[in-house]
Amino acid sequence: MLVSHFVSTRMRAVDLIRKKRDSGEHTREEIDYLVSAYTRGDIPDYQMAAWLMAVWIRGLGPAEIAALTEAMLHSGEIVDHSCLPMKKVDKHSTGGVGDKTSLILAPIVAAGGLAVPMISGRGLGHTGGTLDKLEAIPGFKTSLTLADFRRVLQECGIGLIGQTAEIAPADKKIYALRDATSTVENIGLICASIMSKKLAEGIDALVLDVKTGSGAFMSKEDDAVRLAEVMVDTARRTGKKAVALLTDMSQPLGHMAGHSNEVIESIDVLKGKGPDDLRELSVELSAWMFYLGERTKSVEEGRHLAKEMISSGKAVERFRQCIRLQGGNEHIIDDTSLLPKASFQLEVMSSKSGYITATQCRDFGIALAILGGGRSKKEDQIDHGVGLEFHKRIGDRVQMGEKLVTIQYNAEARLEEAKNLVSGAFEIGDVAVPAPPLIRRIIGG
Amino acid sequence: MLVSHFVSTRMRAVDLIRKKRDSGEHTREEIDYLVSAYTRGDIPDYQMAAWLMAVWIRGLGPAEIAALTEAMLHSGEIVDHSCLPMKKVDKHSTGGVGDKTSLILAPIVAAGGLAVPMISGRGLGHTGGTLDKLEAIPGFKTSLTLADFRRVLQECGIGLIGQTAEIAPADKKIYALRDATSTVENIGLICASIMSKKLAEGIDALVLDVKTGSGAFMSKEDDAVRLAEVMVDTARRTGKKAVALLTDMSQPLGHMAGHSNEVIESIDVLKGKGPDDLRELSVELSAWMFYLGERTKSVEEGRHLAKEMISSGKAVERFRQCIRLQGGNEHIIDDTSLLPKASFQLEVMSSKSGYITATQCRDFGIALAILGGGRSKKEDQIDHGVGLEFHKRIGDRVQMGEKLVTIQYNAEARLEEAKNLVSGAFEIGDVAVPAPPLIRRIIGG
Repeated sequence: MLVSHFVSTRMRAVDLIRKKRDSGEHTREEIDYLVSAYTRGDIPDYQMAAWLMAVWIRGLGPAEIAALTEAMLHSGEIVDHSCLPMKKVDKHSTGGVGDKTSLILAPIVAAGGLAVPMISGRGLGHTGGTLDKLEAIPGFKTSLTLADFRRVLQECGIGLIGQTAEIAPADKKIYALRDATSTVENIGLICASIMSKKLAEGIDALVLDVKTGSGAFMSKEDDAVRLAEVMVDTARRTGKKAVALLTDMSQPLGHMAGHSNEVIESIDVLKGKGPDDLRELSVELSAWMFYLGERTKSVEEGRHLAKEMISSGKAVERFRQCIRLQGGNEHIIDDTSLLPKASFQLEVMSSKSGYITATQCRDFGIALAILGGGRSKKEDQIDHGVGLEFHKRIGDRVQMGEKLVTIQYNAEARLEEAKNLVSGAFEIGDVAVPAPPLIRRIIGG
Repeated sequence: MLVSHFVSTRMRAVDLIRKKRDSGEHTREEIDYLVSAYTRGDIPDYQMAAWLMAVWIRGLGPAEIAALTEAMLHSGEIVDHSCLPMKKVDKHSTGGVGDKTSLILAPIVAAGGLAVPMISGRGLGHTGGTLDKLEAIPGFKTSLTLADFRRVLQECGIGLIGQTAEIAPADKKIYALRDATSTVENIGLICASIMSKKLAEGIDALVLDVKTGSGAFMSKEDDAVRLAEVMVDTARRTGKKAVALLTDMSQPLGHMAGHSNEVIESIDVLKGKGPDDLRELSVELSAWMFYLGERTKSVEEGRHLAKEMISSGKAVERFRQCIRLQGGNEHIIDDTSLLPKASFQLEVMSSKSGYITATQCRDFGIALAILGGGRSKKEDQIDHGVGLEFHKRIGDRVQMGEKLVTIQYNAEARLEEAKNLVSGAFEIGDVAVPAPPLIRRIIGG
């Protein structure tokens, strides 16, 4: 309906929406305009929503994704850690069930001499969030000011907080809109959302743990690979070192899911115990952080350093210090019974004999959420004490009547539903299958 | 991010957006929910905007378009003309330059014994609107209440008004959002917008004049055919008789464009004069209205009746009555100098000799708008006196220096720009081409 002869030449949202609708590629200036005008309220939600849907369907190219990431990054403050002499590194995981590596690798890497300024998220849907897990520790405060964040980081090399109003406000506003308009699951938008927050941490290097399999947001490996490539590319375009590990989420990581449970299992690994897969992945991610943070000359050397930080007890002591500095009860390190625990437990037994061939891993996360250990909307309260303990993994032999999972619960309201989900999540066949490889690919290494 | 186990089973906009995003087909209930919840404010603009963009890109199927049309129709009042004994028929044109057939066929068809309850729109962009043309007549009121509309219609068989708040409020709200989100040009959305308003008129049958060519919104014939098919299909699904005439808009209809000009030319045709193309199309559309309104047994019989209404003077007298009943100065029928006229005129000459082979017809409309005879936004005031008179048509021979167009203007501000557009809109070649056929196809006849 528009008559071109009538309109002025300044940038207008309606024209940029049309451009993306018609599969056009935005310039950096156009993306800067969209993000800054939207953030300050000059572009209304409905125009941004139409643009987001056009982006979801038509996609964004690598240069557009980098421009979007940077525009969102510069919508807020970039934390300045220049007073710290060591390199700053961080890890980001795309999330899954039982994924508690942040709690393990942050103390390892800090003990090894680098700084880990980690701004984390909360769980939503079937995945847990680092902030929620930390809040299972009595007294632990995740809502520090940026000044306190810097102080804690300076003292112990670790700072663990949630997104603040100063960090990438554009992302906060755009994410809420995406959530309400079914425009979440798009690789370019996901990348810009993650990377704008991570780059705002003032880091030198970033290790990405991109999950794939039935418990991951990107259940298809191809999608996960594309996301990993785009994130590594975006980090590099903005001058940061980055690598992505494509890792398995076809079953829970470790034996424990649930908030207190995951703190306990993390402490186990920091003490040199805990399940093999969790220890292996934590060491591997730490090794890459050491290498990209120029603390070691190779990833192999990084692995040795990570193991040494565990065996020497330096890592677990660093975690104790971090808990104390952020107001938490450090005695949980020695006595995990100080953590909230569920009052009851229920064993889920196998209804037949055979081999575990696969799991609907996402269903474990949903079951946990149903028990009170997750959110359906942001305002929901979390029960830190509920949890799942997994006794069998893919490739294991199981007898009829043998324990598959222990459910730790407080309320019976939706217990039956949770139990059915857990029980139905195991696929049991007659022929043994090999355990899936934990690390499937290294992208950008 | 959503966990299906958490959500209740009631309909949610976010799920319907996702469905269309993923190329799903909506049920009638889903479309009813979207339209009614949006109209009453339960779905916010941003969710509707995301849905509209998904619709624009993914499209709507015939059943979805019919459901959307009906949902929008039932968002408001359907005018009840059951007190009138005769059939109610209307015509809708998709718009073009110089298209004033409504002013001609309404009196013809009313004089012939049917009722024409016509709810029209205003011009936007390069096209004129029936309401604006009527308002060139001193005193003519287009904003009647529905009660007055019914009374006028009862008395003279014609009622000419604009969209009221009671008629398809969903369309009003959705159209404003489409305009701001670059989601206007979609066949399903266009169809629902047009048809919901037309069906609200309480008509029995509808004749559609779908324009194609350089002066039409649908310049490509394929798109115009699809729109015509969809509109005829939608009318029939809702139990109305309908036909679409695919007609030429590769050059202006008639010799005159501009509001007073078009009233004058319409009166000429009603008096048995005026240009051939305009008279032919007016008779043809009237004939189809007589036929679908069951006034005649065939379209051919309808043509005879239409011509008889003109030659007998009944049509022009009916127009006089209509003007009087709607508050206008009926003396313009006898003395068109009572209409507002521009103060100045400028002749646009041909810069070379040859044959007119084509016109950029849209540019005539834009030139007229630039002179003050159109709007760039809804709030703009219109100068009814400015206009264009066309002296040459496609196929005509023209000499260098011969008059192509007379521009009637009031202000010199953008005259040069308008003149260049008009002058550049003619393509002149060395070889004669045949005049384009006026009626290209009949769809659904």
